[in-house]
Amino acid sequence: MNRYKAICLDLDGTVYRGTEPIAEAVEFIAAAQKLGVDPYFITNNASMTRVQIQEKLKGFGIQANVERIMTSAIAAAKYCKKMAEGASVMMIGETGLEEALEAEGIRLTKQNPDVVLMGIDRGITYAKLADACLAIRAGAHFIATNGDKAFPTERGFVPGNGSFVALMEMATGKKPVFVGKPEPYMLEFIQQMGDYRKEEMIMVGDNYDTDIQAGIRFGIDTLHVAGGVTSKEDLLAKTEQPTYHVPTLLDWK
Amino acid sequence: MNRYKAICLDLDGTVYRGTEPIAEAVEFIAAAQKLGVDPYFITNNASMTRVQIQEKLKGFGIQANVERIMTSAIAAAKYCKKMAEGASVMMIGETGLEEALEAEGIRLTKQNPDVVLMGIDRGITYAKLADACLAIRAGAHFIATNGDKAFPTERGFVPGNGSFVALMEMATGKKPVFVGKPEPYMLEFIQQMGDYRKEEMIMVGDNYDTDIQAGIRFGIDTLHVAGGVTSKEDLLAKTEQPTYHVPTLLDWK
Repeated sequence: MNRYKAICLDLDGTVYRGTEPIAEAVEFIAAAQKLGVDPYFITNNASMTRVQIQEKLKGFGIQANVERIMTSAIAAAKYCKKMAEGASVMMIGETGLEEALEAEGIRLTKQNPDVVLMGIDRGITYAKLADACLAIRAGAHFIATNGDKAFPTERGFVPGNGSFVALMEMATGKKPVFVGKPEPYMLEFIQQMGDYRKEEMIMVGDNYDTDIQAGIRFGIDTLHVAGGVTSKEDLLAKTEQPTYHVPTLLDWK
Repeated sequence: MNRYKAICLDLDGTVYRGTEPIAEAVEFIAAAQKLGVDPYFITNNASMTRVQIQEKLKGFGIQANVERIMTSAIAAAKYCKKMAEGASVMMIGETGLEEALEAEGIRLTKQNPDVVLMGIDRGITYAKLADACLAIRAGAHFIATNGDKAFPTERGFVPGNGSFVALMEMATGKKPVFVGKPEPYMLEFIQQMGDYRKEEMIMVGDNYDTDIQAGIRFGIDTLHVAGGVTSKEDLLAKTEQPTYHVPTLLDWK
């Protein structure tokens, strides 16, 4: 692991599981930081702000620098800015997304937007969905933070942003650009911020279809950790294998 | 048309277009009623009650008997009762659906339902969607009033129940039973209520994929009226043709 300057760690399933930390990950992160390599934390979760994620990690005994936290909300805001400087954005989303858009100085609107940006919004209303539907049908660009179908809570799996995107796709006949994993945008923005060469970067995660695919698509090394979404059997059945596979992060030498 | 005792007329696109009546349809209905054949009115719209639809038709100069109005909400309530007597139902929907369920004496619940019944609900919340998702994942039957992707308003097309069903399918991995057209349940319930033979029934509509298909699937005669969703060119390209095709309802002899 010494060859990597940017170790990009997926969060849910890799660093913690819901409200429980993964002990080997906590130990691995502390050891890496001691050696002078401060990992990046990458999540498709667009509802939380960087500070909220930092607090959550702190509760698990992990000291994370907010500058090293990358969410699909932050990447979506950067993507909007890059794609069309000055474009107005109609947002469906929560605090994490709103804060990320404000941080990039993006103009939010509720009428005639250039872009409709959809992230998970647990304050969703029919009016918001109808406004977004009409705007996309009228020609606005359609961007989504991530395509996760459902996410786990203490009550079970509940609808994720990917399910709301499916609703909007059916109502409009249009498909969005997804910014989150397995798309490589979050890794691209990390590369730009740290001015890394691709050989210096590695994507680490438990989910082949999002984490490992994001790394493969971006063209960097990947490490799959067991104990999460993708089992070793499912992993071995994939055509493109990750660079490394380990039972826990402490097994990565 | 004299051979038919049950003339089943689609509403939107056949009898009216949004807030505008179709003159030939209004005249046709009055003439049929004068001859002693009182048509049935059939709609996938599950949000309105029979009385609300009766009032809307009255505004167009059409005298409709509430007993001759069949909505996907009424059919869904009858379907729930027939499928599992005594089953508890978690409802996502508006007044039309709620009233139809109450009329069948169905027990509504917000917890551990036997059935999740989804209709359009412009008071939708994330909590309702999450509860329905958890219930379907826990094994509740999944029934939907109709699969219409979007519906027209004065502002343009906004998300219909089919789009919300797409959300729920993606979040649960389960597909619902649809009760509305093109499924034949509404026609089946009309047949039972009036004790008709199939030769005495005809389904009339502008939309091949919903109206005409419902008639074909139920095994009764069908009449396609021009000027709505399905053009004559699109109609002619279909493998199974309707029994009749007319430019307007007044051309049907």
